Amino acid sequence: MSDKVRLASIGLGRWARVLARGVQRGDKTELYSCFSRSEDKRAAFMEEYGVPKSASSLDELLADDGVEGVIITTPNDTHREVITSALEAGKAVYTDKPIAQTLEDAAAIKAVVEKTGGVFAVGHSARRLSGNRVMKQWIDDGTLGGVSMVEANFSNERGLELTPETWRWYLSKTPGGPLIQLGVHHADNLQYLLGPVKAVSAHTRKLFTNAEVPDATMAILEFESGALGYLGCGWASPGIYQIRLQGTKQNLMYDLDFTHWDEAHEADEYSSLVSQAYGQQERSPVELPHTDMFREQLEEFGLAARGEATVEVQVDDAIRALAIVHTAIESNRQNGAAVEVESLLSEVGITI
Amino acid sequence: MSDKVRLASIGLGRWARVLARGVQRGDKTELYSCFSRSEDKRAAFMEEYGVPKSASSLDELLADDGVEGVIITTPNDTHREVITSALEAGKAVYTDKPIAQTLEDAAAIKAVVEKTGGVFAVGHSARRLSGNRVMKQWIDDGTLGGVSMVEANFSNERGLELTPETWRWYLSKTPGGPLIQLGVHHADNLQYLLGPVKAVSAHTRKLFTNAEVPDATMAILEFESGALGYLGCGWASPGIYQIRLQGTKQNLMYDLDFTHWDEAHEADEYSSLVSQAYGQQERSPVELPHTDMFREQLEEFGLAARGEATVEVQVDDAIRALAIVHTAIESNRQNGAAVEVESLLSEVGITI
Repeated sequence: MSDKVRLASIGLGRWARVLARGVQRGDKTELYSCFSRSEDKRAAFMEEYGVPKSASSLDELLADDGVEGVIITTPNDTHREVITSALEAGKAVYTDKPIAQTLEDAAAIKAVVEKTGGVFAVGHSARRLSGNRVMKQWIDDGTLGGVSMVEANFSNERGLELTPETWRWYLSKTPGGPLIQLGVHHADNLQYLLGPVKAVSAHTRKLFTNAEVPDATMAILEFESGALGYLGCGWASPGIYQIRLQGTKQNLMYDLDFTHWDEAHEADEYSSLVSQAYGQQERSPVELPHTDMFREQLEEFGLAARGEATVEVQVDDAIRALAIVHTAIESNRQNGAAVEVESLLSEVGITI
Repeated sequence: MSDKVRLASIGLGRWARVLARGVQRGDKTELYSCFSRSEDKRAAFMEEYGVPKSASSLDELLADDGVEGVIITTPNDTHREVITSALEAGKAVYTDKPIAQTLEDAAAIKAVVEKTGGVFAVGHSARRLSGNRVMKQWIDDGTLGGVSMVEANFSNERGLELTPETWRWYLSKTPGGPLIQLGVHHADNLQYLLGPVKAVSAHTRKLFTNAEVPDATMAILEFESGALGYLGCGWASPGIYQIRLQGTKQNLMYDLDFTHWDEAHEADEYSSLVSQAYGQQERSPVELPHTDMFREQLEEFGLAARGEATVEVQVDDAIRALAIVHTAIESNRQNGAAVEVESLLSEVGITI
């Protein structure tokens, strides 16, 4: 019998499949069980990924002693309940981003993580992209000099394709639209690169989508370091995934062709990182080591479930990312006036 | 004797030289006279560009019947006085951007332009770059579909090199720092592309420069069309000149290597415009016809001085661009809250 870490998928939609392929590219973890309310979906998922078991209820899955960790890809507004049940059942928990829909839910999840002492990972995989790792290194070793500005955009065409059958159509289920689905990635990336954000000014607009959610959002972030950040997220155009850093010694421009996002092991091949040094006319391409963000985070999670690794993105990092989204939404309500991230965290009693 | 339009340069610093080379690349205009308070500068400029005459005072230059038009590159806070004198002397006037330092000055200039009926051009040359012209065409002919977001950045290392001997060091002479010197270009470009801006949310910070001015500025623009725009301008990094448009059918990404900015006739060679179409995995480079923004705008101005052409960027366009800068500065005072452009214009009695 294999000694791989036995994981179970909860929620069997498109994203569960992307992560299942990430698990299968690794050699330390395996998919052992799965659950969705739909029996057809369970059967299809088992066949597609060779998963030996399924459960007909969440309780049944969590009662299975064979399951060491769960991978949650259910809608954002269900995260709190599913995560809480899984942690209380003694399972290690990986949840897709965002950690939760609301900061209230996130505060409850943080309390359960701390009470149970369980292993808890949030899928802020994007920080593991090769370009992000290299940018972080260049910042930390001083190659960039002082960073005054960073710009990030994560957009795609989702808003043009949404139908009332999908939860992302509804403002009550997807507050902020692309901000909470895409922007939360960059909210983590940018804080990973430059430290905590202090305040956010933002505007959100609904322009071309038929859904309830906004499809054009822009935010200005003020970092505790003093640097300024821009975060743009749209749902009404072809895909974009970019980060640009402006330092006193160098600029770095990172560009990933979003159409290759789902296949993380190939993403580096469709990415470029370009530097421009102070006083130089020519730009230089920067070599990107190969990474596989989905495989790596799920292997780390699996090993952590056995106490053999530490999870990189834990509850506080994930809350910081979600807090930027909700601070942006609040700033939009206040016509763009800067809102302190801390003010929203303290409202729900979160101390980081 | 040549029948070229006889122009005179007022203010003989670095930018006068860039424009002088633009004049000399053309075949319809010539530099006929020049003025700076420094006799040494006048002598050097005459020799360097083969200018036959100079004047030892502004009045002397403006009294010269041989001068058909003047090219003003003096500091922003002198524009109002020099422009007013030149228009009242019956000369056609080209002034470098911004039209003036303050909206009060701009209102006074607009009144003089309307009173004298003189030819008046403002050097918002950047809209003439090949990439901007192609982007405008793709918007107007529907190729992009509906545009929800546009991002623009114009930055350079100026703030790291300023000394107290230069007027750009001082906040009183360069309010907004890179916003008024660089951002005003994109303020024109973006309104050229997407129409008037209604409101601005902005933050400005002073981080790495020793000068009084900010060196990191970010603004979110709300267009009357509903689209959102981002404008980033820094003075603490290597140069950047970029515009990105997000449309429902296409994205367009324009990137000009700023280190080649001054030599406008070569700028297209160091530029790229790339499109990404909805549903397509591959991006496509877009061909950029050759342009020479400085030559073209000065030829247009020269011909307009003789009634043989119409100036593209007149007083109202230039005021709209300056108004975005000052609305951004006002928004920063209000901690990023959106400020209506119209509110600043009406304060100084400008109706556009």
